[in-house]
Amino acid sequence: MQALLDEIIEKTRPLIGLGKVANYIPALGCVEPNQLGIAVYSNEGELFCAGDAHTPFSIQSISKVFSLVQAVSHSGEAIWQRLGYEPSGQPFNSLVQLELERGIPRNPFINTGALVICDINESCFAAPSLSMRDMARRLSGNCEIVIDSKVAESEYQHRARNAAAAYLMKSFGNFHNDVDSVLRSYFNHCALRMNCADLARAFCFLANAGVCKHNGETIMSPRQAKQINAIMATSGLYDEAGNFAYRVGLPGKSGVGGGIVAVVPGRYSICVWSPELNPSGNSLAGLAALEMLSDRIGWSVF
Amino acid sequence: MQALLDEIIEKTRPLIGLGKVANYIPALGCVEPNQLGIAVYSNEGELFCAGDAHTPFSIQSISKVFSLVQAVSHSGEAIWQRLGYEPSGQPFNSLVQLELERGIPRNPFINTGALVICDINESCFAAPSLSMRDMARRLSGNCEIVIDSKVAESEYQHRARNAAAAYLMKSFGNFHNDVDSVLRSYFNHCALRMNCADLARAFCFLANAGVCKHNGETIMSPRQAKQINAIMATSGLYDEAGNFAYRVGLPGKSGVGGGIVAVVPGRYSICVWSPELNPSGNSLAGLAALEMLSDRIGWSVF
Amino acid sequence: MQALLDEIIEKTRPLIGLGKVANYIPALGCVEPNQLGIAVYSNEGELFCAGDAHTPFSIQSISKVFSLVQAVSHSGEAIWQRLGYEPSGQPFNSLVQLELERGIPRNPFINTGALVICDINESCFAAPSLSMRDMARRLSGNCEIVIDSKVAESEYQHRARNAAAAYLMKSFGNFHNDVDSVLRSYFNHCALRMNCADLARAFCFLANAGVCKHNGETIMSPRQAKQINAIMATSGLYDEAGNFAYRVGLPGKSGVGGGIVAVVPGRYSICVWSPELNPSGNSLAGLAALEMLSDRIGWSVF
Amino acid sequence: MQALLDEIIEKTRPLIGLGKVANYIPALGCVEPNQLGIAVYSNEGELFCAGDAHTPFSIQSISKVFSLVQAVSHSGEAIWQRLGYEPSGQPFNSLVQLELERGIPRNPFINTGALVICDINESCFAAPSLSMRDMARRLSGNCEIVIDSKVAESEYQHRARNAAAAYLMKSFGNFHNDVDSVLRSYFNHCALRMNCADLARAFCFLANAGVCKHNGETIMSPRQAKQINAIMATSGLYDEAGNFAYRVGLPGKSGVGGGIVAVVPGRYSICVWSPELNPSGNSLAGLAALEMLSDRIGWSVF
Repeated sequence: MQALLDEIIEKTRPLIGLGKVANYIPALGCVEPNQLGIAVYSNEGELFCAGDAHTPFSIQSISKVFSLVQAVSHSGEAIWQRLGYEPSGQPFNSLVQLELERGIPRNPFINTGALVICDINESCFAAPSLSMRDMARRLSGNCEIVIDSKVAESEYQHRARNAAAAYLMKSFGNFHNDVDSVLRSYFNHCALRMNCADLARAFCFLANAGVCKHNGETIMSPRQAKQINAIMATSGLYDEAGNFAYRVGLPGKSGVGGGIVAVVPGRYSICVWSPELNPSGNSLAGLAALEMLSDRIGWSVF
Repeated sequence: MQALLDEIIEKTRPLIGLGKVANYIPALGCVEPNQLGIAVYSNEGELFCAGDAHTPFSIQSISKVFSLVQAVSHSGEAIWQRLGYEPSGQPFNSLVQLELERGIPRNPFINTGALVICDINESCFAAPSLSMRDMARRLSGNCEIVIDSKVAESEYQHRARNAAAAYLMKSFGNFHNDVDSVLRSYFNHCALRMNCADLARAFCFLANAGVCKHNGETIMSPRQAKQINAIMATSGLYDEAGNFAYRVGLPGKSGVGGGIVAVVPGRYSICVWSPELNPSGNSLAGLAALEMLSDRIGWSVF
Repeated sequence: MQALLDEIIEKTRPLIGLGKVANYIPALGCVEPNQLGIAVYSNEGELFCAGDAHTPFSIQSISKVFSLVQAVSHSGEAIWQRLGYEPSGQPFNSLVQLELERGIPRNPFINTGALVICDINESCFAAPSLSMRDMARRLSGNCEIVIDSKVAESEYQHRARNAAAAYLMKSFGNFHNDVDSVLRSYFNHCALRMNCADLARAFCFLANAGVCKHNGETIMSPRQAKQINAIMATSGLYDEAGNFAYRVGLPGKSGVGGGIVAVVPGRYSICVWSPELNPSGNSLAGLAALEMLSDRIGWSVF
Repeated sequence: MQALLDEIIEKTRPLIGLGKVANYIPALGCVEPNQLGIAVYSNEGELFCAGDAHTPFSIQSISKVFSLVQAVSHSGEAIWQRLGYEPSGQPFNSLVQLELERGIPRNPFINTGALVICDINESCFAAPSLSMRDMARRLSGNCEIVIDSKVAESEYQHRARNAAAAYLMKSFGNFHNDVDSVLRSYFNHCALRMNCADLARAFCFLANAGVCKHNGETIMSPRQAKQINAIMATSGLYDEAGNFAYRVGLPGKSGVGGGIVAVVPGRYSICVWSPELNPSGNSLAGLAALEMLSDRIGWSVF
């Protein structure tokens, strides 16, 4: 495995330069593009790393999985009265569908759906940002994980599109808390800094029937873990979910910070990271690395 | 397995009466609603059946998988220049997306995508309808499978929506043959009559790395079989793909005749059938049977 | 004329009861529905009134004309770089078109366009709400016109939809000031209380080549007055502009308070009012009164 | 008047070269671009011409007014159960709105609405194309007007977009006759060849309260003439109706052959022609000429 990961890093590194670092906020745009890391964590508790697997990065939309897990753990099936789990078929931040469907987001992995999840959590947790940070620490076993407040503040300053979505949902009665407060929480989640090794370990419970391997904690039931994997499989990569299923064949979730997590149910959790994105907003080299990995070991669930 | 299938039939049969038989053409509307069948075919070649598994029905959109297999086998990756493999997020026959995306359908399992596939096949095969019928016979091992010409003719008489889609694609240069001819082929495919046992056997190659178990024929490469499963997983159940992943967790394809096929990669191919549909156009009792089956044996790929 | 107005009031009063008072905010919903007034002001300075022409009401979207006049007077043609003057073909508060057209509203008489106009004015006037109130006083010659702060506050509390629109435009770079401040101004404009006589007089300059009859003040050039009439003719009645042209044939602007103003270029300005609305949000009895008036005197510009 | 028309031709001729001749069918694309004509016909029966006012051209969508007049004359208000008279806010051939509004076109001057009108006429007239040609002859007083069958055939060969629209309406039950037959009629109407003088005379009845000046024939009631003018004012220039009202201020209808007709109610009917189009599909030099004409004589209805 270690040799394979090293080889994959070597073979995909030449792709760096073909993508584009996210720059819609200055704090993200200044990341060094020439980085590529991968980490694989097995259900037996082994961790394999290659490349820049220990460099922390902004997890961005990968945090949407943590938010969903938090909401499912706390509120269960009731959350599905406020959003769906169907692929959206629209860009990640589109309001068109949201208006046509009267404020009910398609799934928890587009921005609008994640905002509803944050609104749900805002009603349930005294300090949602700290709960989330602590959950990331607990799942990964790394108690040094922090929220990058500079990134969070920068995102808040550029909140217009997400504020529009939140207010639109509020106009349909599907947003209960103060918009600005929930946006603060949302951006704090996005601004968590974790590395590939952290994330591979943190997602182990989805490969391991809901149980966190390194500390034995039960995060959710086996059925719930399958359900979250299913949502990742159909909606985890923005408008490239079909492409990811076609090429990689695993449940996954990406973020504009360049990270992608993937799950091999019953066996492994994976994280790749490279900051440059393809036009759909997913890590260009990261996707290539995952495709090669899945292909070489035959990990596609299909 | 046999006991389990019998139990599932018994437990889901009470759902009959809650759905609605498709009646957009008279020839479909007159089917006896009180029917429910299931068939499971293993990669070892064993067939298990329960309920009305030997009653033929109109396979309708399940034929879209056969058309795609035919196109992929003959034309390979080139077909993806004319359509995508992303979930559509729109009702199965919507033209909105097609117009916004300039005549390129999202995937081969919505009507517009299937029409493009038929247009591709029309250019490659002398007698597309007969080729398709023969392929269904070969894959299932049942040489008595026929096209129900009454259904095909009735669909043709009610072709307006599909004709609109075909002409719209033609206006964007993505439809090369005579619209009426391709529609004839398309409706002939939909009008194939097969039973659950036929379909379970016919889909074996997708569970078996591209090889047809009962006659050893290689239909496609293992990679191609995975890719088709991936497309079924993200786009196989109209606007209910996410729900199917969430509840059943298998690649699948449904038809308005009430049939649903599903694939357990590496192990089984399945067909359920019951004519009454839910509001999304998928077999109501069939979905429930598949959910129970997947749940009881833990077959979800996630 | 007086006899005709009396007759029209008598004949349209029976329509009261067929519409529905706007109730999206409590402060509007409590108006007495059984009211109907009409006022006609000639370019010679004669005022004719009938029914409840002296009862003040909330002018709501009629204020969008005042805002536009203020912006045109101050900033001229430059404003058309930030919005258009085409009919929208969409409900008055839809965000779909706004997103597809990258934050540029179709015209100044839908909410999104009026918000941009308010944003423009916010950058030009020290106290936009007071300027607007003073303009309404000056144009109508009634210095007792006030802003109903209870209505304004109630609208602000229910601002979600308009806030969504403003933030969406901000995300496209087409909104420069603080969203909440501009919304405060916008709702203050909407909350002006005027009666039919006030409004008929206040709109005289649009019938009179830009000149306010009662005080001789030049508000704008004859060409600018024609242009504003043109925009009212194609976009003044929400998604009923075509119907208004077909039935009444005059430039007009309506508000959900039940008022409608209309202009007979070169001759008259008119205001009707009755609180109950038709399904398009325009005064039901008011529309009927205007249709009868235009029909009887042959005032249609067509 | 004659001097003014000569001056306008001279001043707008330099704009030739800035637009683009319609070339979606070869038969239209081969017109000589360097042409510009204008004709004004007064309600007193005087005709003023300048430039290439006697050169016939393909009237294209101007024929939509003739079709509507034919339908209104024969079927009256009943036609409005099958289409509306609101501006569409969408490109002239969009299917998006048509699908969302379940097959009911917005107005008779977009393609979809004109197709419904042709479908209505197809049910009422034995030979719709000949009736239409004869009506054009009668209204213009020129019995040499013909249908250019080469253009009609070429349009039919490129019918895909219009066929899509017709079939889509058929799928909603709003199209009763054979699609291909109605398309033949529709393209025949579009392919009428008339010159500016013909069209100015032919549109006189809309300026003259429904009565054809040169032969005294009553085409429709004064009210109906006003209604058609109203529809032209809000929907006559594709997605530029607002611009035309803002700049010209007259009811008008354009065609991709480069012709534009306009009506000064109670006074004049006008036709300008120049083949090169602006990006909205309206004659570039023609629009400029009309704007200058309206501006110089103060003909705007507003």
